[in-house]
Order: sequence, then C-alpha cells, then structure tokens
Amino acid sequence: MLSASAGDAPGTDPVAAARVLERALRDEIHRTGLRRGVVGLSGGIDSAVSLILGARALGAGNMVAIALPVRGSSPSSLEHARLAAAAAGVELRVTDLAGVGDALEAALPGSGADRVRRGNLAARARMIALYDLSAAERAMVIGTSNKTEILLGYSTLWGDMAAGVQPLGDLYKCEVRALARVLGVPGPILAKAPSADLWDGQTDEGELGFTYDDADRVLYQWLDLHRRPEDLVKAGVPEALFKAIHARVLGSAFKRRMPLVLKVSSRTVSMEYRLPRDAGT
Amino acid sequence: MLSASAGDAPGTDPVAAARVLERALRDEIHRTGLRRGVVGLSGGIDSAVSLILGARALGAGNMVAIALPVRGSSPSSLEHARLAAAAAGVELRVTDLAGVGDALEAALPGSGADRVRRGNLAARARMIALYDLSAAERAMVIGTSNKTEILLGYSTLWGDMAAGVQPLGDLYKCEVRALARVLGVPGPILAKAPSADLWDGQTDEGELGFTYDDADRVLYQWLDLHRRPEDLVKAGVPEALFKAIHARVLGSAFKRRMPLVLKVSSRTVSMEYRLPRDAGT
Repeated sequence: MLSASAGDAPGTDPVAAARVLERALRDEIHRTGLRRGVVGLSGGIDSAVSLILGARALGAGNMVAIALPVRGSSPSSLEHARLAAAAAGVELRVTDLAGVGDALEAALPGSGADRVRRGNLAARARMIALYDLSAAERAMVIGTSNKTEILLGYSTLWGDMAAGVQPLGDLYKCEVRALARVLGVPGPILAKAPSADLWDGQTDEGELGFTYDDADRVLYQWLDLHRRPEDLVKAGVPEALFKAIHARVLGSAFKRRMPLVLKVSSRTVSMEYRLPRDAGT
Repeated sequence: MLSASAGDAPGTDPVAAARVLERALRDEIHRTGLRRGVVGLSGGIDSAVSLILGARALGAGNMVAIALPVRGSSPSSLEHARLAAAAAGVELRVTDLAGVGDALEAALPGSGADRVRRGNLAARARMIALYDLSAAERAMVIGTSNKTEILLGYSTLWGDMAAGVQPLGDLYKCEVRALARVLGVPGPILAKAPSADLWDGQTDEGELGFTYDDADRVLYQWLDLHRRPEDLVKAGVPEALFKAIHARVLGSAFKRRMPLVLKVSSRTVSMEYRLPRDAGT
C-alpha cells in the first residue's frame, strides 16, 4: 500500500460545518417544496452522518431511514444501520434487495461473476429503491458521497452518486469522520474500516491501494491549496501515490457531469440554457 | 388537448445535422478511449435515429443494439426494434426485464400499483441493463433523449436520461423526425404515435396534454428565439398551453443538473473545480 508522509491535511471545523450544513440542507429541501428526506443506510459513517444531519435539518419525524441489503451484505452492516438510525432518532426500515439482485444477474449474462459489474448492479438497485421510496414518501433523496469519493470517482455513476442533494460532498473523508464524532455517531461505526459492503472482507482502502488519510492530504494540497505535483513529491508524497490519485481524479471526470449533449443549435441545454435546480418553486 | 396556432418552428437542416452529429459522436466516443456504442431500442423513432447515427459514426460492427422489454411492453415495440436494428445493419439482442420488474415490485410495496412509479422502475431497470452491457462490451451508452423531452422533463432521472452522450439532445422532436427520414428509419416507426411503451395505449401526447409539434414551436420561439411569453400569447399561443409548458420546463430543472453539493470549502466539486469529461484520456 502506497503511503504519504505527513503534511497539511484538510481540517474544516466540524462544529461550524454541522451548523452550515444543517441550515443549507433545510433551505435546499424546503426550497423545492419538500419537507422530508430519505437516506439509505449502509452501516457506514457517511450515511450515518447524512441521516443525523437530515434529522437536525428537518426533524427526525421527517426523515426516512432505510437499509438495503443485497446478497453478500454483512449482518454487521444491518446492526450498524440500526445504531445509526437510533442515534438519529429515526425508525429503520429494511428492504431486502437480494431478489432484485438475483433477477438482475439472471437477466444480464456474466454480471454475477464479475465483482465490479455485480457491485454496480447493487449500487444501482439501491438507487431505484431509494428513488421509489422518495416518490412514495414525497421525500428528497439525501446523498452520502464525500469529497474524497467524488474526486476519486470511487462510486457508481447513477448509483450511490444519484441523489437530490449531497450534504457531505464538500468534506474529505477525514472531515466526515470529525463531523461524525461531533454529531454523536456511535462508536462501532466510527471504528470500522470503510467498505462498500459488496463482498466479504471488501474494504475501500484495500481496493484503492492507499488510505483515505493519504488521499485526503494529497487531494487537499493539490486541489485546494493549489500546490504543484512536483512540490508535493519533493515534500515527501511518493510519486506513485500521486500518479494513482491523479489518474483516478482525471479518469472519473465524466462521473461528475451530466451526459454531454452534442451541439447543433445556438441555445443548447446545459450550455447556453441553464436554470437553477429549483427554478419551478 | 391544448393547441397552438402555426408560427415559427425549429428547422435544423437534417442533412447537415446528420453530418455534424455523426462526426461529433465519433470524436466524443473515441476521445474517451472507447470504440463501441450501445443503444437501447424502444421501437420508437429516437432510439432508431441514435442507433443509425452510432452505426454511421463507429461502423455497424461497433454498435450493440438491445431491446429491453418489460411486462406490459407491446409486441409491436419489439418488431419495430427489429426493423430499426435491420436498418442500421446491427444485430438485435433482446434482454427480457420482466423478471427484474417483478422482483422490484415485490421488494418495493405499492410501486406496482402506481403507473408513474412503475414506469420509473422500468426506465431505471433499463438503465442498469444498458450500463452493465456497456461495461461488458466496453461500449459507451448512447442516449436517445431529444431536446423537447429534456426541456419538458418528460423522462426518468437516472433512467432514460442516463447516458454517456446525447446525440439528439439539441434537436426538437420534429427535427428528430426530419432526421429520421433522412437516415432511412423504416416507415412503420415514422408513422406510429410516440409512446414510452409503459402501459397499453399510453402515448406521450396523451399524457402531456399537448402535441410535440405544438411544444416544439412554443419552446423554440420562447427559448431559442427569445420571444416574450406575452408576445407568444398575442401571436395565438393559448395561454394555458404556454403555462403548461413553462411549468414543465421550470419544474424539471433539477433533472438537468448533477446533485447539488452543499458548499463548505473554497474549492467545491462542480463549482470551482470542474474538469472536461474526458480529462483522463
């Protein structure tokens, strides 16, 4: 595993962040005419933080929390989802997606034997369940992606990246952890290794080949502090680590944009013609 | 049904559009390092045009065409998908998603009884199948949304709107029809009423409450020619028609943007930090 020496790390004040995000989340959801939110709980830290922020923003009674286990999800994930829901004061619903996953794998030849394809099926099946619930409950889907994940593209397009709003999207993973401590996320959730929970023993850091702390430091110094790559390397960041992160950030740019509309007119949607998200309210 | 009097209609030259789009589609797909494309064929005009453009851009041998019927799809849709694939010189694959739809409806209480929720399940299940196929075949998902649909928001977020590229997104429905004639889309596809094919007898125009030709004229005069709403009404557009279209355009703005990231840092993804889609290639 590649590893970076110490150096400036992102450090948004978690108390201030909690206040700003609670207010912004409430404003954004109310502005669209909705009063409620829904969060899919994986049992991990990000979704626990999103749920608690949602409960603070909208009131616990206005939040829907749902666990969406697939075949291969660990039983401890469900336990941790229960802990998170309890910490937020929200009742946990559980919708088992094993049957949906089986039907998808049966319909799509070869998908079940490939870890990545299988993981994407699960992430997208969860998106379908969350959006269906959001329609049934008139609630906005509150996302759980953090800045590290979004920049690395370590997520499924139209899957876990799909949401009405991303309250954690401007916080690096280590900042989400700090926020989680301030918001009272239960200890077992804070302590466990980050995992997409798609197969047994899967951990994010094992798959990425570097730790979130290292990625956070490199991304922050490079993109937020505008340090030059060569200066990062001089300061002790292994070149292979920087290159791995750089390749992920550039290679996932397409996941952070809407589909490109090929231009033939003088006023093209998403180019000359753009409205704010809440134009209709 | 509301109806507009005649007036300026969009009229991009279909021969020029075909040339521009074929070239742009090839460039965009090759730029990302891919050589192949995949189109989901509904049996309708838009997906037929996308497939033929893809075949002209990349070569018929580099295109994957797939029909994705759900329970309730009409047998004529599959016939028309076959005609479209044959016109493009591409073999048609068929993946039946009835089992996936059944599993989703079983897992998501109430979803099967609600036409809109059911339609969204189908559109998103098709997205999953298309993206899984795109991973298996190393092919870009070529979208089929036109400008009318995108502006009216008459489409499913993270469903039929999800694609790598939208070759028809800057052409109004009437312009897609003109392009279809130039590209040799078979007569039965040209002749039939536009339908999402989600339930028997469903037609887009019946659901919308106005015709595509009227919507195209109003959208074009309002958004492309920058005519004022009051002048449109003076020129004969029924006020109720304008209001219905206006409400749809504004109310669907959120579907045309990525999820909002709540801002806490000075360099936020999709605000200060944006890369071109193909930054990594």
